[in-house]
Amino acid sequence: MAKLVQCVPNFSEGRRPDVVEQIVDAIRGVAGVRVLDYSTDPSHNRAVVTFIGEAGPVKEAAFLGAARAAELINMEQHQGAHPRIGATDVIPFIPIGDTTMDECVTLARELGADMGAKLGIPVYLYESAATRPERKNLPQVRKGEYEGLKEAIGQPERQPDFGPARLHPTAGATAVGARPPLVAYNINLGTSDVAIAKAIAKSIRGSSGGYPSIKALGVMIEDRQVAQVTINVCNFQEVSLQRVFETVKCEASRYGVNVIGSEVVGLLPMEALIEAAAFYLRLENFKPEQVLENRLLDQ
Amino acid sequence: MAKLVQCVPNFSEGRRPDVVEQIVDAIRGVAGVRVLDYSTDPSHNRAVVTFIGEAGPVKEAAFLGAARAAELINMEQHQGAHPRIGATDVIPFIPIGDTTMDECVTLARELGADMGAKLGIPVYLYESAATRPERKNLPQVRKGEYEGLKEAIGQPERQPDFGPARLHPTAGATAVGARPPLVAYNINLGTSDVAIAKAIAKSIRGSSGGYPSIKALGVMIEDRQVAQVTINVCNFQEVSLQRVFETVKCEASRYGVNVIGSEVVGLLPMEALIEAAAFYLRLENFKPEQVLENRLLDQ
Repeated sequence: MAKLVQCVPNFSEGRRPDVVEQIVDAIRGVAGVRVLDYSTDPSHNRAVVTFIGEAGPVKEAAFLGAARAAELINMEQHQGAHPRIGATDVIPFIPIGDTTMDECVTLARELGADMGAKLGIPVYLYESAATRPERKNLPQVRKGEYEGLKEAIGQPERQPDFGPARLHPTAGATAVGARPPLVAYNINLGTSDVAIAKAIAKSIRGSSGGYPSIKALGVMIEDRQVAQVTINVCNFQEVSLQRVFETVKCEASRYGVNVIGSEVVGLLPMEALIEAAAFYLRLENFKPEQVLENRLLDQ
Repeated sequence: MAKLVQCVPNFSEGRRPDVVEQIVDAIRGVAGVRVLDYSTDPSHNRAVVTFIGEAGPVKEAAFLGAARAAELINMEQHQGAHPRIGATDVIPFIPIGDTTMDECVTLARELGADMGAKLGIPVYLYESAATRPERKNLPQVRKGEYEGLKEAIGQPERQPDFGPARLHPTAGATAVGARPPLVAYNINLGTSDVAIAKAIAKSIRGSSGGYPSIKALGVMIEDRQVAQVTINVCNFQEVSLQRVFETVKCEASRYGVNVIGSEVVGLLPMEALIEAAAFYLRLENFKPEQVLENRLLDQ
C-alpha cells in the first residue's frame, strides 16, 4: 500500500472566501500535495481543508498554510460559534495506507517545532502526539479559547510544547496532533421511532459505556421518516465499520427492527472497506497489495 | 475512479528467460505503463505479462511487446503443452475503474489493425471484441493451433479480422480481445470430503447449469486436509464475489458443512471489494470517489 499522510487543518476564517482561497493556494502550491476538499462555515467562522500526500510535502504544506493564516487572520477580531485558540486552530496528521501513527507523531513534533521557532506561534501537541495525558483531549487544550488562553498560557500546566509562552499577537496558538482517520457512518433503521435509534446509540458509544472510540446519536431523518444512528467511527482499526454495523443490527433486533441501510459520509480509507469485505468473505491472507489500484499508488 | 486499462498478453516463450526479459523491457519502456507482474511456465513454454496504464500507452506497449516477440520467437520451433496460435498468442484488454468495455473493444480493433498492417500478423478479435459469434470463445479461435491454422486460415470462416490471410512465417497469428477482469477465488470448506467440493462446484459453474460467468472445480488441499471449491469469477459485475460466496455457503449447509475461509489469488480490482463491503454493510449511494486512495488516482 502507498505510504501517505492526510492532514485536515482548521482555520478561523469562514466568512471571507478570498482569505480562505489564499490559504488553500499556499497548501496547494506544494508539489506532491493534493487538496481533496475544503469547506467553510460562516456561523462557526471556520474553514476545514483536507489534503494528502507523502509526509515531507504534507508537512511543508501545513506549515505554509499556517504561515499564510497568521498573516491574513487577526484573532483579536475573530468571532464564531466554534471553540478556537488561533488563526490555525488545529492541525491533525492522519496515517493512511502503510504510514504508522508514530510517523505522524514525529511529523506533528517537527511541524510544531518549526511553527514555534519560525512563526513565533505557541504549539500544543494533542491526541496521539500529546506530551501530557490531559492534552490527548483537544477540548482540554482549547480550554478558555483564544481569549482565555492569553492569560492562562503563563501557568505551568498550560506551557506550550513549542514556541513562546505567550500568544502570537494576531495568530494566537495552534494545536498540532496525530490521530486515526475518522469515518462518519450512519445506520438507518426500519422504524420512525427515534427513541429506538437513541437507545441503540447509547448502547454503542463510549460516553455511556460502549466502544471508547465510537461517538453516536439517535436522530430522525424527517423526509424519509427513518430513525438513524449517526456515528463517528474514530478508530476503525480498533472498532471496525462491520463491528459497528453488526452491533447496531443486533441491538435493533431486540426491538424487532431491521437495519435498512447505512451510509458513509465523505471520505474513508480503502483499508476500512477491505476489512469489511475480508470479514464477511472470511478472506484468508488477503493483502492490500492484491488490489490492482493499490499497485499504482506504490512507487 | 481512475480510467485505466489492464493488459495481460501471453507469449509463446517460457524457457528462455532472456527472451522474456527483452519482451517485458519493450512493454516497460513505454512511459505511463506499469508492469505489475510477469511469470513463465516452462512446460507450457509460455509467459504471461500483466501491465496497466491509460488506454494510449497500454496499446502502444502491447504493440511493441508483440513486435519484439515476432522478432525473437519462431513458432516453427515452438513446442508446449498450452494451446497457441502465435508468438504473441493472445492479448486481452481489460477495463479497470471508469473505463468501459466498449473502450477496450475499440482498443482491440485499433491494435489489431496496427498489428495486421505494420507487423504482417493476422489478428482474430475475440470475446467482447469478436466480430462473429463463434469467435467470442477463445478455444474456438485457437482451433487447430499454429500448425493447423496454417492451412485453415484459407477457409472463409477462418479469415482473420486484420492482416494477411496467411500466417506470419515465424510469429503465426494473434487473438486480440476485450474481456472483464478475472478474479481467481477459492472457498475452503470445513470438511476433507472432496466429493462435497465437487458437488458444490458443479452447482455454481456455467458448464453444468450454474452461473454462466463462473468456472469452478472441487479439489483437495492436501496439506490442510481441506476440500476447496476453486473458482474463476470471470465477470464480477455480473456475478459478484459475495454472490458466489453466499451460494457456496448455502450449498455447503445442505451437507452440514461450513465455509471456513476464502482466498483471492493474485490481483483483483478495487471495485470487487467495494461491492462486497457495500453488499454486507447495506451501503446506500456509496461512490468509489469516497475512497480516499481513489482520489489520488484521478487526474
